[in-house]
Order: sequence, then structure tokens, then C-alpha cells
Amino acid sequence: MKIDGTPFRSIWVDETDHWSVRIIDQTKLPWAVDLVRLTTMEEMAHAIKAMLVRGAPLIGASAAYGVALAMRADASDANLAQALAVLGATRPTAINLRWALARMQALLQKLSPNARLAAAYAEAAQICDDDVATNEAIGKHGLPLITARAQNGRRVNVLTHCNAGWIATVDWGTALAPIYMAHDAGIDVHVWVEETRPRNQGASLTAWELGKHGVKHTVIADNAGGHMMQRGDVDLVIVGTDRVTRTGDVANKIGTYLKALAARDNGVPFWVALPSSTIDWTISDGLTEIPIEERAATEVTTMTGRALDGSIATIRIVPKDSPAANPAFDVTPARLVSGLITERGLCDANEAALTGMFSDLA
Amino acid sequence: MKIDGTPFRSIWVDETDHWSVRIIDQTKLPWAVDLVRLTTMEEMAHAIKAMLVRGAPLIGASAAYGVALAMRADASDANLAQALAVLGATRPTAINLRWALARMQALLQKLSPNARLAAAYAEAAQICDDDVATNEAIGKHGLPLITARAQNGRRVNVLTHCNAGWIATVDWGTALAPIYMAHDAGIDVHVWVEETRPRNQGASLTAWELGKHGVKHTVIADNAGGHMMQRGDVDLVIVGTDRVTRTGDVANKIGTYLKALAARDNGVPFWVALPSSTIDWTISDGLTEIPIEERAATEVTTMTGRALDGSIATIRIVPKDSPAANPAFDVTPARLVSGLITERGLCDANEAALTGMFSDLA
Repeated sequence: MKIDGTPFRSIWVDETDHWSVRIIDQTKLPWAVDLVRLTTMEEMAHAIKAMLVRGAPLIGASAAYGVALAMRADASDANLAQALAVLGATRPTAINLRWALARMQALLQKLSPNARLAAAYAEAAQICDDDVATNEAIGKHGLPLITARAQNGRRVNVLTHCNAGWIATVDWGTALAPIYMAHDAGIDVHVWVEETRPRNQGASLTAWELGKHGVKHTVIADNAGGHMMQRGDVDLVIVGTDRVTRTGDVANKIGTYLKALAARDNGVPFWVALPSSTIDWTISDGLTEIPIEERAATEVTTMTGRALDGSIATIRIVPKDSPAANPAFDVTPARLVSGLITERGLCDANEAALTGMFSDLA
Repeated sequence: MKIDGTPFRSIWVDETDHWSVRIIDQTKLPWAVDLVRLTTMEEMAHAIKAMLVRGAPLIGASAAYGVALAMRADASDANLAQALAVLGATRPTAINLRWALARMQALLQKLSPNARLAAAYAEAAQICDDDVATNEAIGKHGLPLITARAQNGRRVNVLTHCNAGWIATVDWGTALAPIYMAHDAGIDVHVWVEETRPRNQGASLTAWELGKHGVKHTVIADNAGGHMMQRGDVDLVIVGTDRVTRTGDVANKIGTYLKALAARDNGVPFWVALPSSTIDWTISDGLTEIPIEERAATEVTTMTGRALDGSIATIRIVPKDSPAANPAFDVTPARLVSGLITERGLCDANEAALTGMFSDLA
């Protein structure tokens, strides 16, 4: 997608040195587009952990390049194992991290050390290209959900939570891919962008990328999503996900479950967009088996934004003696999910449908 | 209740001049306890509109003193009508505003102008004293809901949304009254305080007043409430309300409906605490008949807090070209409400129960 007219991916190999990895520091958005250069596996691990890169598909692609950077430093078995361990421990919930590392491991462990560097970069690049193609397919399969509601030029209101846009992936996005395609096809699509406390990825990332592409949108507090559905202002919900069980339970950014409940209560379709790499075929019960990352309380007690003088400032918004808790994800049971938008098509959120559509993976 | 050991009400007549009205400027909390002196009806109308005072019961008491201030300036029929009109237009959702103004009007319109000033102050004081007694009764009736879950010294976790504490009323609070009483009785009660975006009344007001009274609490993002219920960490939900229909539908701060859905989905009791003055006996359908205040987008796009240097700063948290919407309340249908905690006792959220318990009012 484009930033001010210039096409970008969210991660790429530096055009000049052909080995360092460039990312957009997403902690700086929307106030600055800071293209950071990463040169070591450790820097990549930090970038994932500190959420300079985030979003399940992009976490996977980033981890793959982290392995490539490790192979550049030392392509030994020991360093490969070390890189896989360090990168694998950065974030607990997104299964794409484990998927991408397993893919890198499967390829590299059977190669001799001196063959690993080139292979690692090639495989990471392939993971990125695959992600773009996958998300484009998700967009095409999801597009009819929007066009079906756009009869006679009627505006279609889509509500989304957090950021599952192009900067959460390598390009296109998952939940936002059908929206970009609808917009590009001239459909009057409008997005309710939930702020997504505590890290505000909706207000700071989704609003930013939709705005840069010219898609109509309105930011609302997370609290307002249910009310918008009650008053008939939401045609459908589309969100991304960090892990889906083989039974269709969906882990996603904290607060997603509440919107699934409201969608069900108001007869609003609730769709989840994902590449098949987000499916964890090893588990069946999302509520008990998906690890939920507990992040720092300071993400709740402080907030960062732009001060009146243009500087970036962090303020405290909770009394200093009040503790805070910060679970980063919740699990939406499959029973609340209208369906999954995958690169192979729309799929019911249950084991029979998933294992049927993905019989080669399940 | 107490602030740092000193007993306070949220509104009172100045102890020295015996006519101006003192309030705690709640827009300055938790960073400063600023005791503002109001001297005219217009200042009181501004204080209500700009939310220096807020919370349905306190809005009612404030409006009553606003009428008293108006009578001090000019006790004519014309000025009484003007004061009732101006104060009545400050906030649309909380029915206590209309209730208190109707009570003042009923008293004052039958008096000659020269009898109105003293009567107005006396009636406003009575409204405040009644509110304190009412909330104390709410606390006593709600207390068994907590004690019943505190067998064998077990900790009781209560989740609340927004601020329905003592500073939302004249004293005690509605939703927090049973919690204060449980705490004072030595019960191990802990409160999940929802931040309550966009104005953060949970993070800034509820956390502050619970902390000042020594009640254990943890601030969470509004998004986290459902997850806390899913993992079994919430024993019951207690919230306040701005208006209840005769059928038991509940208008409260935006996002309340989402927690009611989550409570139902997880078998968690969802209780609403209110004085009977919050019941609007004239309407039966909360979703279509309760006006929902739409507040300024800047409440969503900016946030105010304490900077590292101790100063109070406002920062922007949404890209400058992204619009925002800000509905301030939502309606929780009676079917999701476990029951109402009133000054006369616990009451089912339906017309038969309400009109039975309040047959003299309905």
C-alpha cells in the first residue's frame, strides 16, 4: 500500500546494502514514519518484543528475517538454535511467530552452515511474498461480504478492532484487505476504527493507514462499538487474529470478545480474517490452551501522543498509587464467529469446516 | 467519605459566606483537589455542562443549588423559569437533573418571590441530605451481595465501570456504596476499575476515591473486562446509571452494555445501583426513548494527564485528519440486568417489580 503516494511494504531488505532489514517503527506512528534499519538478530528480537513491528503475520515475517540476520553473524547449528529460541520467546500469543520459525528451521537445519545464509534470506523473502499473495487472496474472498451490502450505492459501515491492516502484515492486511479492495472498487465503505486501548493501535495505526489510503473512517472509543451496533450503524465486523484453534476459537487483541458478543446480540455478522499460518492445529480449546500475554502496567497507566508544541509526550493517566493489569489478548469462542476469511475462501468457524478446507495442513 | 482523613461531601454551601456553593472540580482529579466556589446560576450550569460536577445524583443536587443561586440574583417568576430552562438543558441523559428541577419548581412556583430564596436553599440542602441517606440505604441493601461471596475470608472481586462513587453523588456513591461498606466491615473486597474511555472517569475518579479510602483496586482497560470474567476473576459487576426506564432498561456510561453482555455470557451477576430519582417512569423502551448525549470528538482524540515534569498536559492521540465520534452513554436492556439495588431494597429489572416496589412513584 502507499504512504503519501509511495508504495511500501512493512518490512524489506535494504535496497543499498542488500542485507540489513528495514522496518517502519510502528511505535512512532502516526506522528513519524521512521524507517529503522536492523542489523542483528538481537535487534530484531527487540523490535518484535517492543512492538516496533507487530501484527501476527508481520511478527512471523520479522522473525524469519531475524533468523537470516543470525545466519549472517554465525551460521552454526548452535547459533541457529539460539536464534530460534530467542526469537521464539519474544511474544507468546501470535502463532505465526512459531509457524515462521518452524519453516525456517525445517529448511536450514538440513543445510550445511555455509549454505544457510543465502537460503535464509531467500526463505524470509519467500515468506514475505507469500504473505502478500495470501492477504490479497483474503481481500478477494472477503470483498463480496462488503459488496453484498452495498446495493444501490448504499454506504457500508465496517467496524474493526485493533490493527489488522497492511502494517500488521507485509502488505494488504488481513481484516483491512477486503476494505481496501472495496474502496479501490469505488464502493462507499466507511470504517468505525476502535481506539483499542491500551496501546491504541486502532487510533494510531488503523486510522493512520486508512487515512493515508483515503478510506473514510471515524475513530471511536472501544466502549462505543456495542452502541453503534445497537443503533444499526454497523453492517459487519471484520477483525484479524493472533491465533485460531482447529475448532475456530479466535485469540485477538483484548476487547475483541466484547464486540463479538455485541455483534451476536444485534444480528451483525462477525468475521475474522486470517492466513492459514495463524491456525494452531494442535489445540482445540482457545480459552484454556492459548497463552495470553500479560504486558506492562505502564501501557495502561500512561499514554503517549503529540503535545500542543508538536513534541511527543508521555503522560500519566492513573493515580500514582493505583496498580493496573494489562492482559493483551482475549479469546472469542467459535460460537460467536460468523465465519473466517482465509486465503482459500470463506470458512465456517468449526473443526469440520477448517479441517476440510485445510486437509493438507490439519 | 474522606480525602486524606478529612470528611467531605461533593457539594456544600460555603462555611463562611453561607450562600455560595462549593464543589470539587472533578476535571482536575486525580491530580489536584480544587475546591471551586460557584456564585451564579450560570457558573453552576457551566460546571454541570463542562463536567466539573458529574454523576447523575450529583447533577441533580447541583442543579438544585443552581436554582438557589438564581433565586439569590432574582427571585421573579421569569428568572425562575429561565434558571429551570438553562439548567435543564445542560445534560440530556441523566434523569436526576429533570427530577431535581421539577422538585425545586413544584416548591418555588407556589411561593411568592420574597419567600423563594430561603426555601430554595433549604430544599437544595434537603435534596443533598436525602441523597446521602438514599445512598447509605443503597449500600446497606447491596452489601449482602458482597458478603454472600466472602465466605471463609475469600476475596470478592467486583468490577465497575465509570464512576458511581461518592463523588458522583453527594456522599457514599451508588455502585460503590456497598463496596465501601464491605471494606469498612473488614471484608476482603477488590475492585476491577475500568478505565472508562474516553473521559477516563474510572482511571481518574474511581481509582482516586477508592485509593483515598484504602479500598484495594486495579485499573484495567475497558477492553479487559470481558476477559477478566472469562477467566473467573469477577464475582459480580456493580454499576451506576443515569436513567432507568419503568421496564428496567438501564442507560449508563458508554461501554456498560458490553459488560452486561459479558456478564451474561459468563454467568456473572450484573447489578445496577440507583436512587429511585433515576427512574424515568414516563418511558418503557430505553433503546428508543432515552436521549444519548453526543459529546465533543476532542474527548476521543486527545487525553489529559500528568507529564513527567509534574505539569498537566493534553496530548493528541489520533491522527489530525481522522474524525472521531463520541456517544457518551449506551443502554443495557433489562434482560441483561440481574437486578437493581435501590434505597428500598433489591428489585428485579422489570415493570412489575419496579412499579410494585415504587407504587407511590410509578
